[in-house]
Amino acid sequence: MQLPGAWTQLRREILSEIKPTKGEQEELAAFLSRLRSGLVKALEEAGIDSEVEIHGSVARDTWLRGQRDIDAFIILKPEAVRSDLLRVNEVVKGYVGPGWIEAYAEHPYVKKIVEGFEVEFVPCFKAEEGKRIASAADRTPLHTGYILDHLSESQRDEVRLLKMFTKGIGVYGAEIKVGGFSGYLCELLVIAYGSFEELTWAAQDWREHEVIQLNKAVKPGKFNEPIIVIDPVDSNRNVASAVTETVLWTFVAAARAFVEKPERKFFVPVIRDVPDDLPKQLAERGVDVIFVHVPDRDPPVPDTLWGQLYKTEKAFGRALGERGFKVLRSATWSDEEKRHIFVYEIESMVLPPVVKKMGPPVSLLKDSKDFLNAYMGSQEVVSGPGIEGGRWWVEVKRKNALSRVDLKKTLVRDCEEHGVPKRLAAILRKHGSVMINDEIEAQLTGRFTFLLEGFLRGRPDWLG
Amino acid sequence: MQLPGAWTQLRREILSEIKPTKGEQEELAAFLSRLRSGLVKALEEAGIDSEVEIHGSVARDTWLRGQRDIDAFIILKPEAVRSDLLRVNEVVKGYVGPGWIEAYAEHPYVKKIVEGFEVEFVPCFKAEEGKRIASAADRTPLHTGYILDHLSESQRDEVRLLKMFTKGIGVYGAEIKVGGFSGYLCELLVIAYGSFEELTWAAQDWREHEVIQLNKAVKPGKFNEPIIVIDPVDSNRNVASAVTETVLWTFVAAARAFVEKPERKFFVPVIRDVPDDLPKQLAERGVDVIFVHVPDRDPPVPDTLWGQLYKTEKAFGRALGERGFKVLRSATWSDEEKRHIFVYEIESMVLPPVVKKMGPPVSLLKDSKDFLNAYMGSQEVVSGPGIEGGRWWVEVKRKNALSRVDLKKTLVRDCEEHGVPKRLAAILRKHGSVMINDEIEAQLTGRFTFLLEGFLRGRPDWLG
Repeated sequence: MQLPGAWTQLRREILSEIKPTKGEQEELAAFLSRLRSGLVKALEEAGIDSEVEIHGSVARDTWLRGQRDIDAFIILKPEAVRSDLLRVNEVVKGYVGPGWIEAYAEHPYVKKIVEGFEVEFVPCFKAEEGKRIASAADRTPLHTGYILDHLSESQRDEVRLLKMFTKGIGVYGAEIKVGGFSGYLCELLVIAYGSFEELTWAAQDWREHEVIQLNKAVKPGKFNEPIIVIDPVDSNRNVASAVTETVLWTFVAAARAFVEKPERKFFVPVIRDVPDDLPKQLAERGVDVIFVHVPDRDPPVPDTLWGQLYKTEKAFGRALGERGFKVLRSATWSDEEKRHIFVYEIESMVLPPVVKKMGPPVSLLKDSKDFLNAYMGSQEVVSGPGIEGGRWWVEVKRKNALSRVDLKKTLVRDCEEHGVPKRLAAILRKHGSVMINDEIEAQLTGRFTFLLEGFLRGRPDWLG
Repeated sequence: MQLPGAWTQLRREILSEIKPTKGEQEELAAFLSRLRSGLVKALEEAGIDSEVEIHGSVARDTWLRGQRDIDAFIILKPEAVRSDLLRVNEVVKGYVGPGWIEAYAEHPYVKKIVEGFEVEFVPCFKAEEGKRIASAADRTPLHTGYILDHLSESQRDEVRLLKMFTKGIGVYGAEIKVGGFSGYLCELLVIAYGSFEELTWAAQDWREHEVIQLNKAVKPGKFNEPIIVIDPVDSNRNVASAVTETVLWTFVAAARAFVEKPERKFFVPVIRDVPDDLPKQLAERGVDVIFVHVPDRDPPVPDTLWGQLYKTEKAFGRALGERGFKVLRSATWSDEEKRHIFVYEIESMVLPPVVKKMGPPVSLLKDSKDFLNAYMGSQEVVSGPGIEGGRWWVEVKRKNALSRVDLKKTLVRDCEEHGVPKRLAAILRKHGSVMINDEIEAQLTGRFTFLLEGFLRGRPDWLG
């Protein structure tokens, strides 16, 4: 189990590019020291009994060069109550001064860019061994403790390589948009397998619902996600619960390709030239591409937004399917700020005007009667009703045989019926538009062009 | 459980049309008497120890007016051997004189039209209680015995009504072409249910694999056919084994419609005018119809022929499916003498030029490798390979994206590869032709026109 020789050299190169520099480390240490002492002082003055701790990849020394996000936890005594969390937020706001943003995960927290660092100030309760955890944030100190106890110094670089690898193949991040690997998951995987290299070897043979359990003493809960990594500090939690099936198998396939031929492209995504003739390609592709474009002036935070977007992608896909279009693939793009575009590749815009419908088994008396009542003498019927094997059938004129214009109208106008979430449905009805093939040309701006190029190619960069 | 009042009148009418007349009966009796005595004499002179019996519907008095086929059985002693059967045939040939035809079912038999009656001379061995039956023909005398013992005189008319009903809805006859109800099956069904009327009531609720058992004392064998009617003289035989699923459920559906509204059309098929504009209808139908035309100078006996034809119909259906055409329905027509025509209604002749293929699960290492080897860098690939959920996919140019001309060529030229039986394949390659939609116009002659009209309608006449 050894990677090809070229890996030694490549590994050194990658690490030299992604490890924080001496200067960065010193800058960070100085900043953290100032941040912590200032915060402690402010909390003391407010009479709040708490401890301030730095968590996340910075505390675990698994951060990557250029990464400037810091998790500052303000840990209240177990006997504190929810209103104390809100008091902490008020103190933090006073301490950091104007420019703070209050965000809300399981409970509110404050974030602000301070001296170029993106700091999240997260209040939580002290978790106690054997007691129920009040919120996900309370678990973080336990995670940091576990990683510091189990991840050796040399393994920190392994985590960095794994993070870069998952970023490179597009599966880093547990947020809804990605449905991928969190930093903590990367750390646990390195502890579980020893190194990045060992992990990529092992991942080649992962099975469906693979279970990875670091603390074998604890009996894990029941999980049914694509991959299960039992949280060593909470056996009822799957650290990899966010990982989608597609992400998991992309990782497995990429690990295989990487082990066979370790190359830079697995860590640093290839930047491709977008061909100038995308509209022409779309016009001549043979299969048709339908775009739904939604301007959005005031989108919610990304996780909420992507939840809505993915729900919408599915809803339109279903609506197209119900109208007889065969959707081959779909994708969603958003700049998270001003506009979203849904992309559907369909076999053909032109549908046969007649559909054969299978009816109930002749043996079912009542269903047969209903079927005959519905179709005997109906204007829709082209052939039948007849009997084939044990069932009724009928050929009818295609319902909803839509012209392009009608299709465009119905997709947008009836979007809430199709299952598009309320907020987006309201925007869509007013401002949504549908474009087919090269009609998208005017919207081929910004990073959407890259999404579309990748979508049409359909092949991950690392596959070649 | 009583049929609407109109039935009494209709029943009387139908019976008056289908019961043999006095004159017919007398003519038949006289003929049978001559036939039997002549035959007995010829066999005696040849030194063959046998009995001559008349079987079939004539013997059971369940025949229909105008029916002139007679089964004359020459029954040898159980200790006779196969060569004795052949000797019987020679005697028969001498007795009937020139014009005989020797046919072959399980063993050879002779038939000839004598005085306007179609007589089949069937040699067989005497079946003995509890002994294995040597051939199906040996069973016939037992059948006649059972029917004569169990079918009351009044029930003979019930059988006649049932025969006319099954003829009317197109499911009479156990031959391969029909896959329907034999005369013996009709007789047993009337015995089982008491009358034609009771049978139609009961059939409405028949379930899949309905079992009908007249002799409850005998444990029947295992059967899996659509309907099972245990032969009361041989519990290991399903009298309804020829009945196809479509035939069975057509009978059930027709019985329901008949019980609701007894009408003449269930007994006497409606003769429809064939519209003059069939070619126009074909051209404008929306769905396309492909015809395969085969001239055949020397077809075999109908059962053999229809076996070949149905096999061919399936083979072409498969070949069309493999080339991406969606076959909605198909049918076979033949005049059994000079030409056969296969008819395929397909969703569309125009196929999208790109196909999405799902590949193996990513978890299967070897299959994944093979899939990637097949498609990476392939000229066929339009998009991918990519990963969706747990599987690989790829979009490729449609293989066999045939022009009309190519389709016509490949269907006929490669017909043996498609699975067309050898004899027909040889004819097809030389003389077969493929027509699409109104190109069939020149072939719209004879009874084929009715087949096509019925096929396009798709609705049984009795449905309205």
